[in-house]
Amino acid sequence: MNTDPASNPYPRQPRIDDAFGRILARCWDAGAAPWSAVEVIERDDGLIAANDASRYFTEPEHWSDLERWGWEQAAGRILDVGCGGGRHAVPWSALGHEVVGLEPSPEAVRVSRERGVEAVIGLVPSLPEGLGEFDTIALFGNNLGLLGGPAQAPEVLAALAVVARPGAQLIGSGMDPGDGGADHADYHAWNLRRGRARGQLRIRVRDGATTTPWFEYWLATPDELAATVAESAWTLEALERDPAGPGYIARLRR
Amino acid sequence: MNTDPASNPYPRQPRIDDAFGRILARCWDAGAAPWSAVEVIERDDGLIAANDASRYFTEPEHWSDLERWGWEQAAGRILDVGCGGGRHAVPWSALGHEVVGLEPSPEAVRVSRERGVEAVIGLVPSLPEGLGEFDTIALFGNNLGLLGGPAQAPEVLAALAVVARPGAQLIGSGMDPGDGGADHADYHAWNLRRGRARGQLRIRVRDGATTTPWFEYWLATPDELAATVAESAWTLEALERDPAGPGYIARLRR
Repeated sequence: MNTDPASNPYPRQPRIDDAFGRILARCWDAGAAPWSAVEVIERDDGLIAANDASRYFTEPEHWSDLERWGWEQAAGRILDVGCGGGRHAVPWSALGHEVVGLEPSPEAVRVSRERGVEAVIGLVPSLPEGLGEFDTIALFGNNLGLLGGPAQAPEVLAALAVVARPGAQLIGSGMDPGDGGADHADYHAWNLRRGRARGQLRIRVRDGATTTPWFEYWLATPDELAATVAESAWTLEALERDPAGPGYIARLRR
Repeated sequence: MNTDPASNPYPRQPRIDDAFGRILARCWDAGAAPWSAVEVIERDDGLIAANDASRYFTEPEHWSDLERWGWEQAAGRILDVGCGGGRHAVPWSALGHEVVGLEPSPEAVRVSRERGVEAVIGLVPSLPEGLGEFDTIALFGNNLGLLGGPAQAPEVLAALAVVARPGAQLIGSGMDPGDGGADHADYHAWNLRRGRARGQLRIRVRDGATTTPWFEYWLATPDELAATVAESAWTLEALERDPAGPGYIARLRR
């Protein structure tokens, strides 16, 4: 190993493209076999994680009890925010629900459509026109993280309220960042120093020569979530914590 | 996905530590099970690759015919340069060869030792003192890449000649970069523009919050290798190309 400490501290940046969708599609095209594709996630402090992308295709019997319980609360016409490859939407469709999947990744939308899901390219808070109204706004798979952070969440919640029927529910799963433990305490402290929420992740997904843009993913504490919802058009109706881990399910009512 | 194009184009850098060894040790401690650890390799143009680390623990019957043939040519006292977790050294020991493994990663050295290999922390070209002399200098698992590049290779070959007995062989595997194909042609062109060999990779291994330093790994064409060897204390005795791919085995004589 010939090391050269003087070599470029900042490498070239990967090309911005649909890295997440490329990974998802590669996994799906390989029959969603375990480790047929690897999702590499980079955090803006340099932390890197490599996950089995087949987790985006698991079926309800392999989810946590809490996630499955939350998923079963969906009723009426459903907007699946960040639907990915259809993990939640496909079994909802199988139960006869009407589902629209919303997903910024063109390749993930293609996969969802191949699986029979009515999926639309788009993201929060700038929802596409013509979605109609929904009885359930769903953010499963930790997609409460898409609230983005204390500064972004009001706009996201307002945009979702616009497509919510009176009395509609917003239900989804999130994760308490806890104290961060050894691996994340420094990141939490850095976040606080730069005026961000403790568990506000700035991450991107990398694949080959490509990357997604950096995006915000908020691991809110239940208290932080409650405070954000209190300022919105929604009411926090229930928050169920997973007894076995940091996850929780929140249900909001319009 | 809340994107913020203005957010930091250059993230914080990961902490320099034994990322390669951490991955190797995690895999070994999990019984070298497939995908028990993922090796993330980043190239300095932003390309990223995620590999199953259990490939560092495969046994000879799972190697390519060419790699196994090359490995069988080892004779006498062997210096295994870049021995990793002992993939080549363990079965050499089982055959009764005397092997010394050389490896810059402290955790990889620990794993090799656990497996019964006499492993030493060190790297080319600055070999540690007291290694003694060898009949075979081995650079398998593509470790001819450790020659580093046209500028670095003479120093590496000279250092290895110092620990080679008269008549000793240097044998190892390498890879022809070819024309690069769609994925690598831009990188090759960039390398040529900045005065490097076409297939000279500048890479680092990342794991969690840690990374190795950037290091040079040279995919030399057979012609480039021959030209480099011609200027050294070694003679190129044989170069066997893999009929099924870009790999080759080179044997040099002192």
